[in-house]
Amino acid sequence: MADNKKKKKLAMVVFSGDLDKLMAAFIIATGAAASNIEVTMFFTFWGLRALKKKTLTGKSFMGKIMGIMERGDISKASPGKYSFGGLGRWMFGKMMRSKNVATLPELRQMAIELGVKLYGCQMSMDVLEIPREKMIDEVVACVGVAFFIEQAQESDMQFFI
Amino acid sequence: MADNKKKKKLAMVVFSGDLDKLMAAFIIATGAAASNIEVTMFFTFWGLRALKKKTLTGKSFMGKIMGIMERGDISKASPGKYSFGGLGRWMFGKMMRSKNVATLPELRQMAIELGVKLYGCQMSMDVLEIPREKMIDEVVACVGVAFFIEQAQESDMQFFI
Amino acid sequence: MADNKKKKKLAMVVFSGDLDKLMAAFIIATGAAASNIEVTMFFTFWGLRALKKKTLTGKSFMGKIMGIMERGDISKASPGKYSFGGLGRWMFGKMMRSKNVATLPELRQMAIELGVKLYGCQMSMDVLEIPREKMIDEVVACVGVAFFIEQAQESDMQFFI
Repeated sequence: MADNKKKKKLAMVVFSGDLDKLMAAFIIATGAAASNIEVTMFFTFWGLRALKKKTLTGKSFMGKIMGIMERGDISKASPGKYSFGGLGRWMFGKMMRSKNVATLPELRQMAIELGVKLYGCQMSMDVLEIPREKMIDEVVACVGVAFFIEQAQESDMQFFI
Repeated sequence: MADNKKKKKLAMVVFSGDLDKLMAAFIIATGAAASNIEVTMFFTFWGLRALKKKTLTGKSFMGKIMGIMERGDISKASPGKYSFGGLGRWMFGKMMRSKNVATLPELRQMAIELGVKLYGCQMSMDVLEIPREKMIDEVVACVGVAFFIEQAQESDMQFFI
Repeated sequence: MADNKKKKKLAMVVFSGDLDKLMAAFIIATGAAASNIEVTMFFTFWGLRALKKKTLTGKSFMGKIMGIMERGDISKASPGKYSFGGLGRWMFGKMMRSKNVATLPELRQMAIELGVKLYGCQMSMDVLEIPREKMIDEVVACVGVAFFIEQAQESDMQFFI
């Protein structure tokens, strides 16, 4: 805003793991990166789904139950509305494919190729018992809130999704 | 922030079509516009309800089903909690009227009169099969993410609602 | 962003009353305050739960029903997913305690001690019939949207949670 010589920055908290919100998050992220903006995405709570490998997680009894309820990687995200036990995901997928909209895994790949930096929230990973090795290799680092605040306060745009 | 001579700007993504969130979005938008701030609202996904005319949408089989599930204009938005098949909307409406709070259609009209610019997200419109002519005339344009990013990076405030 | 001599500011709208989103809001707020950032939180709609005393609210018939549905203070917040009539809250509480994560009441107390300013949205308080005296003493003031916009436009970061 103030300094036109510096590259603009966007810092995003991705809290939701819903298909529709993840779509919005990655579309904004790739759109910004394509406009030469530095983008950092911090995935926390349900948003961690976007970084998970296709594997079960959880160590404790509770963690395992949570791991089963939240099983699947980014391709298994369901829309926040009309999930209907998977039917909504299928329906949205069909509607989006027929309009040639990129899928979530494709959008994430595009984000990575455009240099968007993906971070995992260490605290949520601890609580939900998702260790680093169950997350995709492209995750830059697993960080705490202090790191996010540092990035966000130097950014020109912030979103909580 | 940096330049006090320029008018401040607010860029908002309205993703939700819930009564309570749309209320919040339009109250912030009209409040900002009344404080001499330039406001642009980008309606995407469920948020498109706020721009729709009172008409059914959808062309393909899926699109028509979605159009029926999401039927109705802004006045048919239901709260995100306690929707109870329409009961929640009625209850909230009653509680708000008894406190003389403006309704959603009134808030949108106020926003338009205060010069708030309303944009539709072209991609969501394509996916949900809502053509331009099924949206209110006051929509400035139907745009892509690049246009939004352009606006957002020049803004002083951003919200994703 | 522009002026490094001034303290950075963060303005947050807390719309949600969900356990998981309130956790995120207070973790960001305390993290920012600990990084020497001025933080103001505006609680509106369901977010008012975070400021309520452990008491029933509501005056009119509708207000009382709403008060019963939304009964309980911050410690009774349920996660936005997997609420299961209270089971989700218990499960999350257990998972977080086992990882030594602060509880919501502890996080709020920490925020207050770090100088985070908590505001209630007067209009939502009117609609939901939650009077000032049913809210915790630490609430700085109950304000309208104009006050929030004033704060937000001077801030370096904004979030809608």
